[in-house]
Amino acid sequence: MPSAQKRKFQYMKQNGLILWLTGLSGAGKTTIAQRLENTLRKQRYLVELLDGDIIRQNLSQGLGFTKEDRDINVRRVGYVANLLSRNGVIVIVSLISPYRAVRDELRYSSDNFVEIYVNAPIEVCEARDIKGLYAKARNGQIKFFTGIDDPYEEPRNPQITCYSAKETIDESVVKILIWLEKANQLPQLVLSGQGCF
Amino acid sequence: MPSAQKRKFQYMKQNGLILWLTGLSGAGKTTIAQRLENTLRKQRYLVELLDGDIIRQNLSQGLGFTKEDRDINVRRVGYVANLLSRNGVIVIVSLISPYRAVRDELRYSSDNFVEIYVNAPIEVCEARDIKGLYAKARNGQIKFFTGIDDPYEEPRNPQITCYSAKETIDESVVKILIWLEKANQLPQLVLSGQGCF
Repeated sequence: MPSAQKRKFQYMKQNGLILWLTGLSGAGKTTIAQRLENTLRKQRYLVELLDGDIIRQNLSQGLGFTKEDRDINVRRVGYVANLLSRNGVIVIVSLISPYRAVRDELRYSSDNFVEIYVNAPIEVCEARDIKGLYAKARNGQIKFFTGIDDPYEEPRNPQITCYSAKETIDESVVKILIWLEKANQLPQLVLSGQGCF
Repeated sequence: MPSAQKRKFQYMKQNGLILWLTGLSGAGKTTIAQRLENTLRKQRYLVELLDGDIIRQNLSQGLGFTKEDRDINVRRVGYVANLLSRNGVIVIVSLISPYRAVRDELRYSSDNFVEIYVNAPIEVCEARDIKGLYAKARNGQIKFFTGIDDPYEEPRNPQITCYSAKETIDESVVKILIWLEKANQLPQLVLSGQGCF
């Protein structure tokens, strides 16, 4: 019997998932993403949340908000999400990602990409305006603001839609978890404090 | 007994490693990195190779080769390497990364960062000139070329140095593996085709 220190724990190679939350600013993507992250962590999955604002600081300084720059940003997040998910991590992405073509490019080049549309009317998002960005966009302080002077192309057939103006956060999270369970998409791997062999 | 489909495989959460290969263009970083990647994969570790040229396409389009842009690039690769390694992956980075300060910033902010200096004299690298880049740098077609008109700051105390002008590739790879083994740095997790429970 090898010593505990030298013993190798074995586990199956398994793909994770990419849970891609798209929607307007203020629709609730990050709030749902964080709740989902916490829930999955408690169930002992490997989880990473890639949030648009944080990603911009770490991966995409210098990129702006033109269509070209947004597409580069989305592909970049997709690249990192793919690196993680192919090593078993459940990656939750919270990113406006307003253009359908580049979202579809990622979705259809992956077999573990779940497109989740966080769908709230722009009037609701603007009324919330938690970051004060809609006000700035309306008075011209911010240009290329999605939904105001820049387009948002709705997903045509997202796997899941969260109607975040009508549903509670928990309802949205449960809807996502039930979908994943039914689609048999949740990895069979969970963390253990004890190891396994 | 749950069905095989529903059964969850358990494994320990364990940090991976960041094996950061720095050195001049042509010193042999990518060659050593690829051999190391293959060796570790055969030993059933989770491994990802982040290679400078590929990273530039996927994460850093638009960045140039000024000190500022190089530092951004290095930090970006460090960010992705950290995301992967904290989920158990052994990340091999092959990147000139010529500036000491930003390498040290990554090294000393992580407890699983191994700095590996792939050390070959510039005369040897230039004589090899596999990509023809030194010739272009000499005749001015390329600017900011490390070692020619841009600095390379040698690591002061790398954990490992591969003298790639004197050692074979296999000797360098074995040196790295022995160091990792002695430092008890190799994760205890390996992949299994059979799962474990």
